[in-house]
Amino acid sequence: MNAEIISIGDELLIGQVINTNQAFMAQQLNSVGVLVQKMTTVGDTEQEIFSAFENAWNNAPLVLVTGGLGPTHDDITRQVVCKFFDDTLMINEEVLNNIHRIVQGRNLKMRSEFEEQALVPAKSVVIQNAIGTAPGIMYDKDGKYFFVMPGVPREMELMMHNFIVPLLQKKISGTVICHRTLKTIGIAESLLALRIGNIDALFNNHRNTTLAFLPQIFSVRLRITVRESTNERAEAQINLVEKNIREKINDFIYGADEEELEDVVGKILMQKKLTIAVAESCTGGKIADKITNVSGSSAYFLNGVVPYSNTMKTSLLQVEEHLIKQFGAVSKEVAEAMACGVRTISSSSIGISTTGIAGPTGGSKEKPVGLVWIGYSSEEETFAVQYFLGEGRKEMKERASLAALELLRRKLQGIVLQ
Amino acid sequence: MNAEIISIGDELLIGQVINTNQAFMAQQLNSVGVLVQKMTTVGDTEQEIFSAFENAWNNAPLVLVTGGLGPTHDDITRQVVCKFFDDTLMINEEVLNNIHRIVQGRNLKMRSEFEEQALVPAKSVVIQNAIGTAPGIMYDKDGKYFFVMPGVPREMELMMHNFIVPLLQKKISGTVICHRTLKTIGIAESLLALRIGNIDALFNNHRNTTLAFLPQIFSVRLRITVRESTNERAEAQINLVEKNIREKINDFIYGADEEELEDVVGKILMQKKLTIAVAESCTGGKIADKITNVSGSSAYFLNGVVPYSNTMKTSLLQVEEHLIKQFGAVSKEVAEAMACGVRTISSSSIGISTTGIAGPTGGSKEKPVGLVWIGYSSEEETFAVQYFLGEGRKEMKERASLAALELLRRKLQGIVLQ
Repeated sequence: MNAEIISIGDELLIGQVINTNQAFMAQQLNSVGVLVQKMTTVGDTEQEIFSAFENAWNNAPLVLVTGGLGPTHDDITRQVVCKFFDDTLMINEEVLNNIHRIVQGRNLKMRSEFEEQALVPAKSVVIQNAIGTAPGIMYDKDGKYFFVMPGVPREMELMMHNFIVPLLQKKISGTVICHRTLKTIGIAESLLALRIGNIDALFNNHRNTTLAFLPQIFSVRLRITVRESTNERAEAQINLVEKNIREKINDFIYGADEEELEDVVGKILMQKKLTIAVAESCTGGKIADKITNVSGSSAYFLNGVVPYSNTMKTSLLQVEEHLIKQFGAVSKEVAEAMACGVRTISSSSIGISTTGIAGPTGGSKEKPVGLVWIGYSSEEETFAVQYFLGEGRKEMKERASLAALELLRRKLQGIVLQ
Repeated sequence: MNAEIISIGDELLIGQVINTNQAFMAQQLNSVGVLVQKMTTVGDTEQEIFSAFENAWNNAPLVLVTGGLGPTHDDITRQVVCKFFDDTLMINEEVLNNIHRIVQGRNLKMRSEFEEQALVPAKSVVIQNAIGTAPGIMYDKDGKYFFVMPGVPREMELMMHNFIVPLLQKKISGTVICHRTLKTIGIAESLLALRIGNIDALFNNHRNTTLAFLPQIFSVRLRITVRESTNERAEAQINLVEKNIREKINDFIYGADEEELEDVVGKILMQKKLTIAVAESCTGGKIADKITNVSGSSAYFLNGVVPYSNTMKTSLLQVEEHLIKQFGAVSKEVAEAMACGVRTISSSSIGISTTGIAGPTGGSKEKPVGLVWIGYSSEEETFAVQYFLGEGRKEMKERASLAALELLRRKLQGIVLQ
C-alpha cells in the first residue's frame, strides 16, 4: 500500500523549522509495509492545502497530514478538511473532556480558544491527543484513509504509535518492508559499485529488493531494502544480499545500521583487553571526542593529547626536536614519534597519532592542505601512513579522524592496510 | 517571486535521512525576497520525478531541485531533466576539468564513472561544484528558472551561496527580506522573553519586523527578520532592533549569525595576546575540537589533554593523588588542580578543565549524571564552577563544552560570572 504525506505550516516554508515529522512518519509507515511515494509541504493558505489534499487523495489510498490544528488564527486545517469532505464542525464531548484534563494538568485557566479545539468534523473519527489539546482526525472512506494530526512532533508521534500504526497493521496484510544499512569506509562510491558488480545476481533475482548507495563525508552507506510477504522472508532475503555483498567487499564494511566506527573499535579493544591513547595534531581532539562518545570507553581509552604547539610535541610526547627540524611537524617521522610517545607516556597497548595541514592556510607545494600522516604504535611495531584528505578545515578534521579509526580497526581485525 | 522546491531520493521517502536541504534553501530564497510556496519530495523513479517537475514548473517561476545527480545507477535526475526539457547529454569540458581537479585533490585514480559526470544537458547552464564531482544545472527559459543541484548539503549550500542567490538578487527587485541572528547562551528561552519585554516597542512599531526565539541544545538564538523596500532600510531597522535587544540582554549575547563561541573566544585571546590549554575529562576532547575548528587557532591554543584515567590526571597533569582519593575525580578540588596543572605543563596564560559524570552510568545521589565542574586557572586566580547539565552522553558533552567556552568568554570580557 502506498501513502502520501502532507505537512502544513508557514514555518516550514520559510525554513525556520526543519521538518523531522516526515521522516518519522515514513519510518513508521515502512514498518507496517506502507511505502511513501510523495511528501508535500504547503503553507497555511486554504487554496494550497485544498489542492494538496486533492492531489494526494487522488493518487494514494493513504494520506497523512500534519499541522495547522492549533488554536490560533493561522490554523485552518480543520476548516479545509470540512470543505474537502463536505463536512461541518461539531463539539465532541470526549475531546472536550480531554482538553479540560490537559488544561488542568498544566495548571492553566480554561479559555474559549482551548474549548474551540473540541470542534471536530462531524463525519470524522477522532484520534485522541494524549498530551495536547488538538485532536487528530480520521476519515475511512471507500477503503481509503485520510489522517490529520497536529504538527507538534511528540503529539504526532504518540498518535502514530497508539492509533495509526496499530490500525494499519490490522487493515493491511501481505507486505512488509525491511531495511539494513551496511557501512563502508575507505572506498569511493563508484569503486564500490564496480566491485559489487551485477545487481540482479546480488539479489538472486528477487524482484522486490533494492540497493542504494548513500555517500557521506568519508564513507558510503549501502542500504538494502526488501519488500516481502512476511518479516521472516524479508529477513532471509536481506541476509542473503548481505552475504553476497560481504563476499565482494567485506574488508570495507565496518558496521551495520546505527553502529559507528568508534563503537566497533571500542568493542574489539574490550574483547582483546587492549588500551589506547591518541596524540592529535591536525584532528584537534576529534578522535578523543568520538572515542569518548561511547559509554564505557574509560575501560580502554586512557589518554588523549592535542599537542598543538611544537614545544608540546617535544616536551609532552618526547618527540625529538631534531625530527621536527629535519622533517617538519607534518611528516612520517613525527607521526611515528607522536604515536610511540603517547603510547609510552600513557602506558597503553596502542598509540595513534595525526599530524597534517588542516588549512585553509599553511599549505605548500610539497605539503598541500589535506596532507595527513596517521601514526600507529604498539609494542610490536610503529609506522605511519600518508593520506590526502581534501579541503575544508572541519571536513578534513572529520575525514582524518575517521581514517585514523579505520586504520585502527583494520590493524585490530588483521585486515591488510590499503 | 514564488518558488517551489523538489527533493529527490528514496532515502528521504523511507525516513532514513531528515531533509535539512529544504529549510536551508527556503531561508536563502527568503533572504532575496523569494517566497517558497511548496516543497515536494519524491523517490528515484522517472515518472514521479517527471510529474513533480511538471507541476512545479507550471505553478512557479522558480524551481529548485536537489538530489539524484551522483554516479550510480539509482541517480537518474539528469536523464529526467533531459526528457523534460527535450535536451541531450553532452560532455562539458569545464566540468571535466573540475572533476580532474577534485579527483587529483583526493589523490584518486581517474575512472570512467567520474568522467561520466561531465555529461550535462546541452542547452543548460552549468553550475560548477567547488567541492564535488557532480555539477549543478540551470535552465533560464521564458523568464523562469529551473535549478538542479546535488543532494549533498555542503555542495548544494555552496551552489546557493556562490551562484543562485547572487543571480536571483540581480534579477529580482522590489522587496528584500533580511535576517540577523543574535546568539545567546546561559539563559532560558522564557527568561529571555521576559527580559526583552514588549515586542512592538522593541521594533519601534515597524510593521514588517519579526523576532523568533530558536532554542538549541544549550543556547537560544534570536532571529530578527525585516521586510523592506531596500537593503539599506532593512539594515537600518535590523540595527535598531539589535540595539534595543542588546540594551536588555547584552551580557548573554556572545555573537551574531555564523559566529560560534570558539570564534569569539579565539578573537579575544588573539587581541589580548593570551594563550590557552585545556584538560578535559568529561568533555573528552570536544573543547579542543571546537577551538581547533577555528583557522589560525594554533596562535593561541597550545595544548589539550584528555586524561581519561586517574593515573593520567596525576602523572600528566600533576593532580595530587590525595585530592582524587579525598574528594573524588569529579570535584571542585580536582577541577581546579587540572586547570592549574594543564596551564603549568603547557606554559599557557590560561588553563581550562572539565570533570563530570557523563553517564548514562556512574551517577550517584550525591554526584548525579550531569554534574560537571569546570575549572579556570590563570596566574592571578584558580577556581571551579559547578554545573548540572542533564542527561544524554553526547548532549552533556556538548553542553559542558559550551559552558566551559562561555565561562572563558565571560572571564575574558570581564562579565560577572553567573
